[in-house]
Amino acid sequence: MIRVTVFNEFVSERENAEATKVHPQGIHATLKEVLEDSEVTVQTVTLDDEQCGLTDEVLKNTDVLMWWGHIAHHKVPDEVASRVHQEVLKGMGVIFLHSAHHSKPFRMLMGTSGNLSWREDADWENLWVCNPSHPIAKGVSRFVKIPHEEVYCEAFDIPEPDELVFIGNYEGGEAFRSGCCWKRGNGKVFYFQPGHETFPVYRQYEIINILKNAIRWAAPAFRVDALVCPHIEDNERAK
Amino acid sequence: MIRVTVFNEFVSERENAEATKVHPQGIHATLKEVLEDSEVTVQTVTLDDEQCGLTDEVLKNTDVLMWWGHIAHHKVPDEVASRVHQEVLKGMGVIFLHSAHHSKPFRMLMGTSGNLSWREDADWENLWVCNPSHPIAKGVSRFVKIPHEEVYCEAFDIPEPDELVFIGNYEGGEAFRSGCCWKRGNGKVFYFQPGHETFPVYRQYEIINILKNAIRWAAPAFRVDALVCPHIEDNERAK
Amino acid sequence: MIRVTVFNEFVSERENAEATKVHPQGIHATLKEVLEDSEVTVQTVTLDDEQCGLTDEVLKNTDVLMWWGHIAHHKVPDEVASRVHQEVLKGMGVIFLHSAHHSKPFRMLMGTSGNLSWREDADWENLWVCNPSHPIAKGVSRFVKIPHEEVYCEAFDIPEPDELVFIGNYEGGEAFRSGCCWKRGNGKVFYFQPGHETFPVYRQYEIINILKNAIRWAAPAFRVDALVCPHIEDNERAK
Amino acid sequence: MIRVTVFNEFVSERENAEATKVHPQGIHATLKEVLEDSEVTVQTVTLDDEQCGLTDEVLKNTDVLMWWGHIAHHKVPDEVASRVHQEVLKGMGVIFLHSAHHSKPFRMLMGTSGNLSWREDADWENLWVCNPSHPIAKGVSRFVKIPHEEVYCEAFDIPEPDELVFIGNYEGGEAFRSGCCWKRGNGKVFYFQPGHETFPVYRQYEIINILKNAIRWAAPAFRVDALVCPHIEDNERAK
Repeated sequence: MIRVTVFNEFVSERENAEATKVHPQGIHATLKEVLEDSEVTVQTVTLDDEQCGLTDEVLKNTDVLMWWGHIAHHKVPDEVASRVHQEVLKGMGVIFLHSAHHSKPFRMLMGTSGNLSWREDADWENLWVCNPSHPIAKGVSRFVKIPHEEVYCEAFDIPEPDELVFIGNYEGGEAFRSGCCWKRGNGKVFYFQPGHETFPVYRQYEIINILKNAIRWAAPAFRVDALVCPHIEDNERAK
Repeated sequence: MIRVTVFNEFVSERENAEATKVHPQGIHATLKEVLEDSEVTVQTVTLDDEQCGLTDEVLKNTDVLMWWGHIAHHKVPDEVASRVHQEVLKGMGVIFLHSAHHSKPFRMLMGTSGNLSWREDADWENLWVCNPSHPIAKGVSRFVKIPHEEVYCEAFDIPEPDELVFIGNYEGGEAFRSGCCWKRGNGKVFYFQPGHETFPVYRQYEIINILKNAIRWAAPAFRVDALVCPHIEDNERAK
Repeated sequence: MIRVTVFNEFVSERENAEATKVHPQGIHATLKEVLEDSEVTVQTVTLDDEQCGLTDEVLKNTDVLMWWGHIAHHKVPDEVASRVHQEVLKGMGVIFLHSAHHSKPFRMLMGTSGNLSWREDADWENLWVCNPSHPIAKGVSRFVKIPHEEVYCEAFDIPEPDELVFIGNYEGGEAFRSGCCWKRGNGKVFYFQPGHETFPVYRQYEIINILKNAIRWAAPAFRVDALVCPHIEDNERAK
Repeated sequence: MIRVTVFNEFVSERENAEATKVHPQGIHATLKEVLEDSEVTVQTVTLDDEQCGLTDEVLKNTDVLMWWGHIAHHKVPDEVASRVHQEVLKGMGVIFLHSAHHSKPFRMLMGTSGNLSWREDADWENLWVCNPSHPIAKGVSRFVKIPHEEVYCEAFDIPEPDELVFIGNYEGGEAFRSGCCWKRGNGKVFYFQPGHETFPVYRQYEIINILKNAIRWAAPAFRVDALVCPHIEDNERAK
């Protein structure tokens, strides 16, 4: 069983009527609903929870953390962001969705600003597969058409991805690296651009398939000790 | 002085009236005309030349080889392709243009098929910059609009680029990794997608700027011996 | 069940008494013996077999090909090497052992010479883990000590690995990238340096564990169509 | 003229007699002495300076920052570390020396812990060149022998380097990725392992050559605007 924890700031869905309509119980509830299956169990936490619900205990029992945040990144305490960061280095998988490119843990893991350009006009997006045999692209056709999505646009300030899985092409003529993989410490990181709060993107079959693939990909196959820094005594020389 | 050799198969411009109109003397002649400046000297060779004009002597005196080919890849002798391949490993820079994704030397250097999808309807293309501080993107704005271009489309069967510089977005909704950098042996390799024979892409100021940047980037700063395979005698142990 | 095919040139073990002593039935037989388990089945082929035993039929039914060759690389027909190359691009995993850095399929997949330096004095080697949470390093301690091994030494003419898993350190003071991962087309490629024919390296528990890990890592999780190059008709535009 | 700023914590050289002997004026003074030439000018700053001497003004006028720190990383204010981090993203080059793998700016740029193992027994080190045509390896032979150095040892918790230039092999049998390149934002990052405070490593000709190469490599060839995050108005759509 893969244990997924979804963090959602849960702000827009209570303030913006359009977002409420799409996600009446919040994006986290939608994600739980669509992602749970016989191999995946999902718990959800939000900014409302003490420490964002991301205590040591919760993280230690999480295989893959999924993160959705947009307008309240600054409300996540540094201490919580740092705890998430450390847990990824120990081996927890993490999936950053949409506006989470500006979340604290994403920026800590990348070492870059996560900046990008954006435009919000309900364009369609074509999500093209660059790497058809990548586990995250399993079952995806040449491209996925998303009827309406916020536009994200290059230049995207990230380290060169270890693997680029998707490129987004938008109605307005923009392009974006929409699905990117990295490893940091022992943990796997996936950034996935689709998922604006006012469109039912996470209800779309192809997107659910990709998220499920990403969970399986990011889950650690085994756990090693964190990469610590032992001092080696002279009598422990390697020869 | 950077010594550039342009190889062009020189077929379409003699058979296709539209190509002739854009490149009356051949694409190689156009490239020579637009690329030569106070720091760059260009010689041109074609399939008409013995050994495609790519003798040992010519390659040894080439800093950067530029390659345009499309419908006559099979007419380049394996021996010539192999010589080009070896010279890149020794340190010669190489720039593959447009349909050269299927040329023999490109496939030899990549180890993949170079396959992609394509559509030929005179779409516009937006060429987006992913890496604004890369030497090849110097002087380029957020994107370059090319009025008409053949559509190339993912999945593109290449090894993950060392550096991705441009992504192309096409009018019809397709996306493509349009500017990709690799190193192979001692040599630098750049693939650049724009340049269909029936459109005046290589007359466009922004494209000329990119090609000039690519030449400067690909030119070897210094030459080392080829990566040979010396046997080390016991008295040469490293300690 | 993962279906492994081991190719071994099978020359040294019949000509060199020291190699015969270590591998009386050939390296392929040793590998079959140590690698088969409840999840892995191994068939072996050699230069003696017609087409090296690597027919279309055999390759189509192989999940992971393991390749050992040293002094007879030139005896593998180009056609066979090319067939292996193409099958990897379609998705078959491949593991190149020791001197296979100079085999035809390895060089075809890498696009480089595979050159390196070497010394043959029965040094010990320490194989250090760079990436402890990589699937191929599962169950491996900080390093593996190999009592005797041929020395391989940088510079190793390969494309920058997608993932570097092991670095070798030799008694004589040399260093080498001993475990390297790449993806080419749909297929995964692992190069693993240990395995000189005159030392019982493939009888060492830690090495067997690594090879078993590598088989599981390289086996395709699912098969997609080869990356082909479809022409898109105008009425198939993506928008 | 390339404007280098050397930051040195300047602690050991005032507390440890062996370090004082090697660097009577501090490591920063040694570096200034050996690195300045007709193309490079060096200013030095230390923990003694207000804000570590790394004000906005100083950083804005620095092409390449060189960082040496070991036992006083925690004394560098977060605000200063963050300013350095941001300036690298804008395009300033940075070279982290030896124990700076644990400095705040290095960890911020990498997103990992920078952990490694170490042993301090005055072993010799062989620094092997993996990438002979890399600008940082210019003029370096197959390897550099350093008579005495602290041992650093894998696993090194860093993101996979964009380019690996050197691997260290130590007398005691350890191995380490000793010269690693990354790009973060618009800035180039080089980590270089040699340089323990009690050994005259920065007086060794080959090491000085490498540091000079690294300065030239890391210096930005041109400056672009930082990767900011502009909102695009609808009338600015790209088509």
